Amino acid sequence: MPAPKPAFNSLVHRISPPPVPSVQAWARAYGGAKGPLIDLSQAVPGYPAHPVMLELLGQTAASLAYTGYGPIEGERKLRETYAAHVADLYGAALVAENIHITSGCNQAFICAVMAVAGAGDTVLMTEPYYFNHETTLAMLGIGTRFVACRAEDGFLPRVEAVAAALDTGVKALALVSPNNPTGAVYPPDLLAAIADLCRERGVWLILDETYRDFLPSAGEAPHALFRRDGWQDFVVSLYSFSKSFCIPGHRLGAITAGPAFIAEVAKIMDNLQICAPRAAQAAVEQALPRLAGWREENRLEILRRAEALKDVMAGLPDWQLAAVGAYFAFVRHPFAGVSSATVAEALAKRAGVSCIPGGYFGPDQEGYLRFAFANADEEGIRALSARLDGFTL
Amino acid sequence: MPAPKPAFNSLVHRISPPPVPSVQAWARAYGGAKGPLIDLSQAVPGYPAHPVMLELLGQTAASLAYTGYGPIEGERKLRETYAAHVADLYGAALVAENIHITSGCNQAFICAVMAVAGAGDTVLMTEPYYFNHETTLAMLGIGTRFVACRAEDGFLPRVEAVAAALDTGVKALALVSPNNPTGAVYPPDLLAAIADLCRERGVWLILDETYRDFLPSAGEAPHALFRRDGWQDFVVSLYSFSKSFCIPGHRLGAITAGPAFIAEVAKIMDNLQICAPRAAQAAVEQALPRLAGWREENRLEILRRAEALKDVMAGLPDWQLAAVGAYFAFVRHPFAGVSSATVAEALAKRAGVSCIPGGYFGPDQEGYLRFAFANADEEGIRALSARLDGFTL
Repeated sequence: MPAPKPAFNSLVHRISPPPVPSVQAWARAYGGAKGPLIDLSQAVPGYPAHPVMLELLGQTAASLAYTGYGPIEGERKLRETYAAHVADLYGAALVAENIHITSGCNQAFICAVMAVAGAGDTVLMTEPYYFNHETTLAMLGIGTRFVACRAEDGFLPRVEAVAAALDTGVKALALVSPNNPTGAVYPPDLLAAIADLCRERGVWLILDETYRDFLPSAGEAPHALFRRDGWQDFVVSLYSFSKSFCIPGHRLGAITAGPAFIAEVAKIMDNLQICAPRAAQAAVEQALPRLAGWREENRLEILRRAEALKDVMAGLPDWQLAAVGAYFAFVRHPFAGVSSATVAEALAKRAGVSCIPGGYFGPDQEGYLRFAFANADEEGIRALSARLDGFTL
Repeated sequence: MPAPKPAFNSLVHRISPPPVPSVQAWARAYGGAKGPLIDLSQAVPGYPAHPVMLELLGQTAASLAYTGYGPIEGERKLRETYAAHVADLYGAALVAENIHITSGCNQAFICAVMAVAGAGDTVLMTEPYYFNHETTLAMLGIGTRFVACRAEDGFLPRVEAVAAALDTGVKALALVSPNNPTGAVYPPDLLAAIADLCRERGVWLILDETYRDFLPSAGEAPHALFRRDGWQDFVVSLYSFSKSFCIPGHRLGAITAGPAFIAEVAKIMDNLQICAPRAAQAAVEQALPRLAGWREENRLEILRRAEALKDVMAGLPDWQLAAVGAYFAFVRHPFAGVSSATVAEALAKRAGVSCIPGGYFGPDQEGYLRFAFANADEEGIRALSARLDGFTL
């Protein structure tokens, strides 16, 4: 009798292949008939990294100083500099011991989740959700529950719906604001009300703030959670340096939490990869203050792109801009009953518009497409008009 | 009634803090009375990265080409170049589709393990074990069993012991050769016999070969596993670019396996961190052929260090060189009944010799210390003689 082949882990095996490469394959199949590809798929800034950023990355990578292993929690100076930056942004008392550097924000998420939940536990999320959050939990055997966010509520969760869902024994609530995929920005008072619930029920609040540098209002704290007494016992915030500095290929993110939480993350990170890559940490530490003005210019540029998208969509009565926020728009397509993947594939291949099907963000999102409008410049966004107007399947 | 504080994940919470930082703290407490610190603790080459390596790292990091997201599986050219290198080394037919690039070999290990095992499954390891392998499995809720490797067997596992342990329903057998912590090099015929068992029982064989570039014999394949029919159905090999290129801070490793296995790893990596950092991948792709001669010189240098250590230990009758191999030596200390951490702490603080307590590699290893002799130059190794001779607690 032939021996059985060893099996894969069913938790991983049943997950679909990563969605972004398949979307990119549709875009590659576009022949160019309508003009250049308008890529609104993966969330990557459409403008390049600043020359100073590249210079710093080159200098630190060429240095012997960062070739050895570094501290698990991250380079001390980056932790200090980033803590001061976050403290200033939120008007809160934060120090290096509140910061753990990770290889991007997906890693920040898996570290934060693993710190509080294992297989058989349950994490509450909002739907639509960022698909990697869902698959991360699935592959770890962590159960998920969802609070539906509806178009009529601006894709914000209702506090009473969160309260009801928290009654079911979840370990953590994971939120994303500004939201991926909808762009919805959670108001500070909504986050405060949800935080109250989490505190009352003994549930961790994990808040992914990857896109916070693209908020419409400058200088206002995205929320006041870090100013609450005892926040370190239940609040965790995640961040990515990828978007603001246009360096996703260098993989850098950060966790802001209490020191006891950071200690748990350090144990996880040590097993995941010892430490985040060091040279980029040293470069970002220097770039953080030096490129503040450039980041502010980019924020304003992306606001202009949002305005351009609003203009374009206003002229397309069959297409509905259901939500638009810091980086993303969630767009209702006109093909009722057709799967969002079918629509997105056709748009990519025939109209040269690459975007992510709404169905990738949850089973109830088939009527939508995610436009990462920040990826395209104003000219590209204005060109959407001719591509979408009269488009048929 | 005050609300309960949310709890941590008990699987992570019960793991001890990472051991290397505590060992480094002992070394920092050394006052220098006996001369410069001899650091035999963490496995980092004692010589610097080659100037060409640094130049390439600087060039690629300063390039816009690697700032965006890259392929999850790794840069195509690095996968091709590394596949050709491995094919040549093992005399086997390997292609880019057999390779997944990771952020270091700890990440290669967790990806390989997650591809085949989830919470509640069991993985078989050898003891002494590399501590991060043990904690990685523990934090995932994966059970562990151990095959004891004894000093009288040169710290190699007995085939019949492996056979008996494989009868207990394990999903994978994880081996490390050349071994961390003992330095033992598993002969090709032992690996072949163990692979036969794994194939017969339907068990994955995960072989960590982080230290294979420091084998005593040049040009001989470390094993013939990649030349077996059907190896892709059950064999997985792990590698680190950190040691050979002296760039652990840049975090690069690789998995060699069948394409179906690589597809599972891509799903995991996408959730862990999208892709490994890109600029370093592009740099290593160029360095792999260019620095072949330099790597061979280093291999010979580390062999000389092993010989120097053997000389030194031969003159210290109270200390026994239980095993010495590609990178590590496992040394029996003379303080019977004293915990290895007590011995290592005293050695660091008073004799200026930093090493890892044997007990960190398993409960039966308290009589041993791990010397990462490759970290020290010959002069440092010769200086051990005076530090250890007559050392008392």
